[in-house]
Amino acid sequence: MKTIGILGGMGPEATLEFFKTLLSYDPAERDQDHLHIIVECDPAIPDRTAHILGKGADPVPAMLASAERLRVAGADIVGIPCMTAHHFLPRVKENSKLHFVSALEAMEQALRDTYTKVNSLGILATAGTKAAKLYESALPRYAILWPNEEEQKSLVMEAIYGKEGIKAGNRGEIPKALLKRAARSLIDGGAQAIVAGCTEVPLALLQRDIDVPLLDPMHMLAAALVREARKG
Amino acid sequence: MKTIGILGGMGPEATLEFFKTLLSYDPAERDQDHLHIIVECDPAIPDRTAHILGKGADPVPAMLASAERLRVAGADIVGIPCMTAHHFLPRVKENSKLHFVSALEAMEQALRDTYTKVNSLGILATAGTKAAKLYESALPRYAILWPNEEEQKSLVMEAIYGKEGIKAGNRGEIPKALLKRAARSLIDGGAQAIVAGCTEVPLALLQRDIDVPLLDPMHMLAAALVREARKG
Repeated sequence: MKTIGILGGMGPEATLEFFKTLLSYDPAERDQDHLHIIVECDPAIPDRTAHILGKGADPVPAMLASAERLRVAGADIVGIPCMTAHHFLPRVKENSKLHFVSALEAMEQALRDTYTKVNSLGILATAGTKAAKLYESALPRYAILWPNEEEQKSLVMEAIYGKEGIKAGNRGEIPKALLKRAARSLIDGGAQAIVAGCTEVPLALLQRDIDVPLLDPMHMLAAALVREARKG
Repeated sequence: MKTIGILGGMGPEATLEFFKTLLSYDPAERDQDHLHIIVECDPAIPDRTAHILGKGADPVPAMLASAERLRVAGADIVGIPCMTAHHFLPRVKENSKLHFVSALEAMEQALRDTYTKVNSLGILATAGTKAAKLYESALPRYAILWPNEEEQKSLVMEAIYGKEGIKAGNRGEIPKALLKRAARSLIDGGAQAIVAGCTEVPLALLQRDIDVPLLDPMHMLAAALVREARKG
């Protein structure tokens, strides 16, 4: 069995949630039957969205330092619980000896295998992910729908980065209500599924809050990592 | 600031819970203000209780291998989210260059600082911890009360290791009811506080379930690690 590395810290809450998700995809009756997992949670990695928008330092050197810590500690395959960070994955892969499993590739696989009737995806994600055209590049066969500029700012970014937002530790009614309104707009505009396109989104928005499938790339990544680790 | 290492895997659920507790003791408005944490979760570390009871392999070599992985990855100070494993801490310390923070020492400090009227502690923990006299050795100034042999087996060990127990992933009514009955007996026998003396216990038993303080050495360890990391 391979050792799974989590290149986290972007942010710590999402890293914790992904560790939990990963364990939930790795059921075992005895401790000793679980997979070996190493979590590297360095919150000092520069903000991914800020850099994509031209307002902050390049996060790649810090991501590579984290990858190297995982490598020397013994990780074989690595997942990154931050969708925006996937914009930088090609550069990270190029400069690291580790095998990375992409959440976007895991998602494309899951869409092909399971969500065969879904052709249009409404994305709830950071402005960085939007500007980076992450989903458009990775999923060229799907219509990718985004909130308009006003809703992206006042609903989605506010739910994630606001004072009462998820990154400040809130998972309750305030960010949930903002994200529900954004999802409603996307569904009204033709989205057949909503993508929790930033690891913070599903900390507040749940499947029961909307009436189309809520797709969480982190669950798809966790399932792919466990499959890959058990194979080797 | 120092980097915190979590020497986990004993078991993964308790490791996840400790990571969560640690983050809750490290509040921050921005990701970048959090502490750097590395979690090593190797569930293959041999069962601590089994070895203490003379029925299984020595866990120390595997614990030292985990400690070494944390060291090369960059951890400065390390906590172990498994009380029974603290029996082996002196041997681990002797053979590792890392600085370990003991949950038992953190607990003694918290008792002295905060729980000044508590003189007798009722312990809910594994048979291994009981046999190892972990609490008796670390807290010589306190009366240490244990469930009788029958209750230790049918209530406490069943709640932790049983088919419907916590290590098999259950946190609901079955283990809770077993632990509440064990706590009741201890309180009736004179315990002024109940110690969640195994990391699995507080996954099912909560403060609201009993009418004396429920002391969780893992919370005390988390607070001590954060203090120490912010100092350096």
